Amino acid sequence: MKPVCRTEHDFLGEREIDNSVYYGIQTLRAIENFYITGTPVSQEPVFIKALGYVKKAAAMANMELGVLQPDIAAAIMKASDRLIAGEFTDQFPTDMIQGGAGTSVNMNANEVIANIGLEYMGHEKGAYTYLHPNNHVNCSQSTNDAYPTAFRIALYLKVNDLLIALDKLQQSFARKGKEFAGVLKMGRTQLQDAVPMSLGDEFHAFSTTLKEDVQRLREVQALLTEVNMGATAIGTAINAPAGYPELVTQYLGQITGMPIVLASDLIEATSDTGAYVLLSGMLKRTAIKISKICNDLRLLSSGPRVGLNEINLPQLQPGSSIMPGKVNPVIPEVVNQTAYYVIGNDLTITMAAEAGQLQLNVMEPVIAYSLFSMITYLQRAFDTLRLKCVDGITANEAASKAMVMNSIGIVTALNPLLGYETCATIAREALSTGKSIHQIVVTEKGYITEEQWNEIYSFENMIHPQYIN
Amino acid sequence: MKPVCRTEHDFLGEREIDNSVYYGIQTLRAIENFYITGTPVSQEPVFIKALGYVKKAAAMANMELGVLQPDIAAAIMKASDRLIAGEFTDQFPTDMIQGGAGTSVNMNANEVIANIGLEYMGHEKGAYTYLHPNNHVNCSQSTNDAYPTAFRIALYLKVNDLLIALDKLQQSFARKGKEFAGVLKMGRTQLQDAVPMSLGDEFHAFSTTLKEDVQRLREVQALLTEVNMGATAIGTAINAPAGYPELVTQYLGQITGMPIVLASDLIEATSDTGAYVLLSGMLKRTAIKISKICNDLRLLSSGPRVGLNEINLPQLQPGSSIMPGKVNPVIPEVVNQTAYYVIGNDLTITMAAEAGQLQLNVMEPVIAYSLFSMITYLQRAFDTLRLKCVDGITANEAASKAMVMNSIGIVTALNPLLGYETCATIAREALSTGKSIHQIVVTEKGYITEEQWNEIYSFENMIHPQYIN
Amino acid sequence: MKPVCRTEHDFLGEREIDNSVYYGIQTLRAIENFYITGTPVSQEPVFIKALGYVKKAAAMANMELGVLQPDIAAAIMKASDRLIAGEFTDQFPTDMIQGGAGTSVNMNANEVIANIGLEYMGHEKGAYTYLHPNNHVNCSQSTNDAYPTAFRIALYLKVNDLLIALDKLQQSFARKGKEFAGVLKMGRTQLQDAVPMSLGDEFHAFSTTLKEDVQRLREVQALLTEVNMGATAIGTAINAPAGYPELVTQYLGQITGMPIVLASDLIEATSDTGAYVLLSGMLKRTAIKISKICNDLRLLSSGPRVGLNEINLPQLQPGSSIMPGKVNPVIPEVVNQTAYYVIGNDLTITMAAEAGQLQLNVMEPVIAYSLFSMITYLQRAFDTLRLKCVDGITANEAASKAMVMNSIGIVTALNPLLGYETCATIAREALSTGKSIHQIVVTEKGYITEEQWNEIYSFENMIHPQYIN
Amino acid sequence: MKPVCRTEHDFLGEREIDNSVYYGIQTLRAIENFYITGTPVSQEPVFIKALGYVKKAAAMANMELGVLQPDIAAAIMKASDRLIAGEFTDQFPTDMIQGGAGTSVNMNANEVIANIGLEYMGHEKGAYTYLHPNNHVNCSQSTNDAYPTAFRIALYLKVNDLLIALDKLQQSFARKGKEFAGVLKMGRTQLQDAVPMSLGDEFHAFSTTLKEDVQRLREVQALLTEVNMGATAIGTAINAPAGYPELVTQYLGQITGMPIVLASDLIEATSDTGAYVLLSGMLKRTAIKISKICNDLRLLSSGPRVGLNEINLPQLQPGSSIMPGKVNPVIPEVVNQTAYYVIGNDLTITMAAEAGQLQLNVMEPVIAYSLFSMITYLQRAFDTLRLKCVDGITANEAASKAMVMNSIGIVTALNPLLGYETCATIAREALSTGKSIHQIVVTEKGYITEEQWNEIYSFENMIHPQYIN
Repeated sequence: MKPVCRTEHDFLGEREIDNSVYYGIQTLRAIENFYITGTPVSQEPVFIKALGYVKKAAAMANMELGVLQPDIAAAIMKASDRLIAGEFTDQFPTDMIQGGAGTSVNMNANEVIANIGLEYMGHEKGAYTYLHPNNHVNCSQSTNDAYPTAFRIALYLKVNDLLIALDKLQQSFARKGKEFAGVLKMGRTQLQDAVPMSLGDEFHAFSTTLKEDVQRLREVQALLTEVNMGATAIGTAINAPAGYPELVTQYLGQITGMPIVLASDLIEATSDTGAYVLLSGMLKRTAIKISKICNDLRLLSSGPRVGLNEINLPQLQPGSSIMPGKVNPVIPEVVNQTAYYVIGNDLTITMAAEAGQLQLNVMEPVIAYSLFSMITYLQRAFDTLRLKCVDGITANEAASKAMVMNSIGIVTALNPLLGYETCATIAREALSTGKSIHQIVVTEKGYITEEQWNEIYSFENMIHPQYIN
Repeated sequence: MKPVCRTEHDFLGEREIDNSVYYGIQTLRAIENFYITGTPVSQEPVFIKALGYVKKAAAMANMELGVLQPDIAAAIMKASDRLIAGEFTDQFPTDMIQGGAGTSVNMNANEVIANIGLEYMGHEKGAYTYLHPNNHVNCSQSTNDAYPTAFRIALYLKVNDLLIALDKLQQSFARKGKEFAGVLKMGRTQLQDAVPMSLGDEFHAFSTTLKEDVQRLREVQALLTEVNMGATAIGTAINAPAGYPELVTQYLGQITGMPIVLASDLIEATSDTGAYVLLSGMLKRTAIKISKICNDLRLLSSGPRVGLNEINLPQLQPGSSIMPGKVNPVIPEVVNQTAYYVIGNDLTITMAAEAGQLQLNVMEPVIAYSLFSMITYLQRAFDTLRLKCVDGITANEAASKAMVMNSIGIVTALNPLLGYETCATIAREALSTGKSIHQIVVTEKGYITEEQWNEIYSFENMIHPQYIN
Repeated sequence: MKPVCRTEHDFLGEREIDNSVYYGIQTLRAIENFYITGTPVSQEPVFIKALGYVKKAAAMANMELGVLQPDIAAAIMKASDRLIAGEFTDQFPTDMIQGGAGTSVNMNANEVIANIGLEYMGHEKGAYTYLHPNNHVNCSQSTNDAYPTAFRIALYLKVNDLLIALDKLQQSFARKGKEFAGVLKMGRTQLQDAVPMSLGDEFHAFSTTLKEDVQRLREVQALLTEVNMGATAIGTAINAPAGYPELVTQYLGQITGMPIVLASDLIEATSDTGAYVLLSGMLKRTAIKISKICNDLRLLSSGPRVGLNEINLPQLQPGSSIMPGKVNPVIPEVVNQTAYYVIGNDLTITMAAEAGQLQLNVMEPVIAYSLFSMITYLQRAFDTLRLKCVDGITANEAASKAMVMNSIGIVTALNPLLGYETCATIAREALSTGKSIHQIVVTEKGYITEEQWNEIYSFENMIHPQYIN
Repeated sequence: MKPVCRTEHDFLGEREIDNSVYYGIQTLRAIENFYITGTPVSQEPVFIKALGYVKKAAAMANMELGVLQPDIAAAIMKASDRLIAGEFTDQFPTDMIQGGAGTSVNMNANEVIANIGLEYMGHEKGAYTYLHPNNHVNCSQSTNDAYPTAFRIALYLKVNDLLIALDKLQQSFARKGKEFAGVLKMGRTQLQDAVPMSLGDEFHAFSTTLKEDVQRLREVQALLTEVNMGATAIGTAINAPAGYPELVTQYLGQITGMPIVLASDLIEATSDTGAYVLLSGMLKRTAIKISKICNDLRLLSSGPRVGLNEINLPQLQPGSSIMPGKVNPVIPEVVNQTAYYVIGNDLTITMAAEAGQLQLNVMEPVIAYSLFSMITYLQRAFDTLRLKCVDGITANEAASKAMVMNSIGIVTALNPLLGYETCATIAREALSTGKSIHQIVVTEKGYITEEQWNEIYSFENMIHPQYIN
């Protein structure tokens, strides 16, 4: 059965639109023009919600300033509310990466809202005389302020979710820090045996380093609250009524509950991508840290017999199609890969940001595509790492302790007593003969007594060494 | 209605599996363990096809060498054929990025093939005694040879498609090169007016530079034909019968029609990612070139009144939600963004390749995810650029020519006659007075005659200058 | 003449050292082992100064806590003061990139200070019984706290200089913003003519965006003040007396005048590179911005006849060995290249940070090499851009204005009066016929009167448009 | 004493030049304009040599084609020979990174050659009437062909040195491969114990993978032989006599002994940076491989007691300022850092290549700066790694073998006999009870006889497993 169609036009001509859809001719052109990622905007519902916020706030300000009739404004607000509520996401088929600096996404929202509003007003879809995508829904706006503002709101909301996942993960590490507080192990620098420490302190450090990122990420998130609503085309506020920029910003803060502020220099704000670059850089920092942690988890659980074997990760799946019984650290591995993905996308954003020219950065859609996926993937990776790995890690306490006592590195604790050079001689002897430090310094040379040994090499003194000389 | 289930087990325990699906317990675990991208392997059908090739070739070799019974081998070959034919792609729900170095994908294939084969043999799904995912489908293989071999075959096939798109694009530029052969324009270096040239030569150069990439890409594609089948776990060929590596490679070449060769050092080949790195680097090179070309197209079509305005791109959609009549270079813009995406993913691959440790690179799945999407996006971008932009470009011939004749840069043609310093003085005078070069050198100073002028500044001599002194 | 030598030893053996040098055997080994960049630490005097601060503060704390004799501590402090004063930089021949996580640089400082101190005490160089590089100069320290602390102090001081250069540059743009406040020009989005603006606002936006970076950079600089002194080898404070970490931090703050604080988790702090990653990311952000600005300057000054030609950059050198009179935007070009260098080095730092393992990041020397050069190059680039370019930029006011009035984009100002669709029709007519907007809307169609035109298209209304409907 | 000066001029004015120097006014301006890296061109002597080749070949062709008088051409050739011989490198003070696309370097060469030539002709320096930097030395050339041609020749020569270093390194690994052929060790995948192998095969694989890069690098090196001499300003060959491009290319091949060819499309070749991008990508690949190898060397030598401890690296320097006797893998560490530096610079080149606009890539100087240092650093790193590390590596044979026999992974060899599932059960039992595989399968369960065990687990069968079922 052929679909019922309506005819729409823009200044390039006319097109038939399936009358069941709420988007219009410009969205149709976007579908035809852009097919790169195959990922439509509909897969990022929070972005559509944010577009709803922007269009609603604009309508409120426009009504108050007398440039939109109340009934038209009301229809826009009503329609926007439905976007905010998560409806109509399927009406956003535009590919995430488009040319046009987001015009297609903005027009997609304008068209969908216009048609929802038209039905609400009792008109047919497409009867734009009564409620026009450009003249009314987009009133006092340009893509160049509406799109980045919605993008920033969406990022802010997504970062909220990421912060929760990151905070839970650092808490999980902190719990393990407490659980492993009494487990003695060898600390290592440059992959060489260094001096003893507690496994709990090692895990606590993982918690600390991620907790710092919770704080830093919050600071960067705050930069996203500065918007350029009212800048319109290039920041001169052309076509916007006096007082509009301040008013729409105020309404946007009210309806989102976010601490939104207006940029002080709208010309600058309209082409600026600095906040995206810092957010991306901050996500990269967290990715670097989590990748380092996963590298450590894989090292510490290496073995089971021919590796360090200090900890055990939960066993989730057979590790090999050929090697029976082998189990691999698959969760840290997938998190490492997520980190590399994030770091790669930071470069995509770098290039896109640098490519901005004159009054606009036209590459914003690929920045959006990258940042959205970076946040999503990281959040999933954090939850996966916590639930499938960290929460279930156990320690091989006895073996770890034995390795410490058999190590040469523990000689460092004797530096204040015997001096660096004597200790070095002891260490060299241990290495060449295979003897233990205890055997040399207590049994053979008598440098210290058994009692002194026991004091210096008590668990407590090894993990929190007291200076003894 | 509750689905009918079968029970499967691995060495970690038992699980219920919906009996309608062909994958088994290890795939189920993969679904539960890995959810990062949300993109299942089913979205890359060519990869599944390649897995079919690998499993079929292995079965052929195993049968010939007497380590698989003919009926079992036949069932595997039959089932593999259906994968090769593009069936059962929906049975590959594993996320593209996984831990385990591809074990989940390999086991997904082993399980699906086993169950298809079992049905073919007249058994129930899950009756692995008759046809076992590990013992039979994976016979003489490990993930560590089967996965990268399938990956390489899939890449090879995808590069074929990319080469077609790239070649068509360079031909499109070549056609425009011919069409614009008679259009005079100003050449520019460092964005400053330089010396005249033909617009046709400019477009022909776009063709030349992409044509070179067709050649280079073919050379890199050839590196993908070296596989490590028979290496099994780490390259020592453990569990593979004598003669198997050579035989399976030979069969793989036969059934794929590709010039597949066996790596000479299977230990090295099993952890090596060098071919991926070069392929990624080559895709980056093409991305850089296409981005430069799109930057040029956007510059040359800038305007319409306050820009260079030498060419017109096809008008595809209204360019602004606020500025009436504005049309933007949306296709070059989306291609630029695709290029940044590709370049970012090259970094992801760089980090993943560097992270390989000892006998395996466990990060191969993110390399696969990145390379597959880089090739797909580039191929779509090339087709889009050709069909929606290049094929429809027109030239503003008269305006271009007028700008050349009004330029100062044309004085360079007089160097051999008048010397560099005199020409520099003429140029400075033109700049400070606003006079044309013709006015100074012919009318005012009489350095050359009108006849000489006409000879030197003929169209032909401007685009293919003859040395005159 | 053969140099007079002294013999030094470490636990690997004995070596002859030219007695005129202040460094010792471990520095000699470093010279022999590491020759990659050819850039010695002596080329970064602020790093040596920072090492002096660290060693002095340690001696002060060690003396107060009774683990160093007053005469020995005094000699160390005296020697450190000479490093702080900028003396003995030539005694630091160690290559900037070394293995060993900075041990060679730390030992270089320990040896030089020991020998200066020995001479001060009346001993020969090398008489380490009286003042030992490890036992005394390095007392209560490890490379793993001393090196990163000195590195952070050096970075802090270098960022101070960078902030001055950046602030002066933004002021220079701000001055031009005022100077060009009355210059009307066409604003452009996506390289297409958009709506009018003032050249002053464009330059003011450059100032704004860099001023934000002054603020952000200060915030990141503050993260550098957190140090891990007292962590010693891995953060357990082994070999350091009770109270030492707090005391040495306090002294370090006093003698540097910087707001130095002790890290709360010394285990974490010893392997953490987060602050470097953020600093690098912030430098990248500034590099991106300055590169975008330089791209704009090159675009706006393109021509002189076949380009945008809105502004003139100072003419600094002949631009071509062949094209007479050509002058190029060489300063923005060199700044672009500096930006690419900085962005590349951010990746080096990313990889080095990710490569940290367990209790230490051994890759810190390459992070130091990269960050030091990034800051130095950027600071030089900012000064160069300001003095050789921005301060001398002039505007082509008349031509710019004429281009605006001849543009189609000015029709946007009529949207509130005539609606988007009518304006689009006008724009299309202008484009196809070559007519001006004025001709169509005033002369031919009479949509608005000449008086309305003059009001809407006054300079003031074009750069700060009032809403008129 | 005030230096004796001469006065030079260009079209921007006059300047005094110290008469002892051979460069002229344009070089002086370059010194004043560009101070970013502080690294002058004089630090890359091979680049100056290559400029000598280019200028000499041009003079030869110009003389033959009658556009340079024989005496002038002879003077240029004579002067160029002295540059080729390595003289006058101190006359190249221009900073490696400049604006102007290399014009300053080209003019630096033109000026130095002119003044050497003038003295040879019996004239004073600066008497450019007789021998002019632009009219004569630069005759039939532009920076835009002379600079990239010299750059390519310099790269080609530097790659020669790099190939030697890389080849020696792979040979060193190959020697170790033979030396360790009889050392049994555990192979590892995903850092988990996998199946046995020989240490010799592991080192041989390092050799293989680097040997492949020797081959690939040679292929990329060959791309550098395509030059654009005769293109002059933008590829139209303006100012060059007929036949010149072919002739100068032929002479260039003769005097360099390199297989130099002329680009088929001079317009394309003049802005193309594709060969640099591929060379950089290839250097990145080698950097990735060497970094992976160094990661492995550090892992395998981890310990000495609480690590894998399979191999010993030469001990080069005390590893710690605090931990006595500690020795670190400092050479692999410095090579890792070199690799990160190289990978970062590949990004710099990527951005510079993408930034090319229209008929020229103005960012070539930073590409030169990066490529030159990448090659130099890598070559030094390869030599350092070979001489200071690889050549002196020893194996811990007995300990390695004991670890293999104590491992669980050796059960894989029983798959063909017992099936994957039984083997998995054995492996699980070994893991949970701590028993050896031998104890379970021979002593307790009697799955195989002692004789079978000895056959399957012979050294020869472990490193080259025969299929037994």
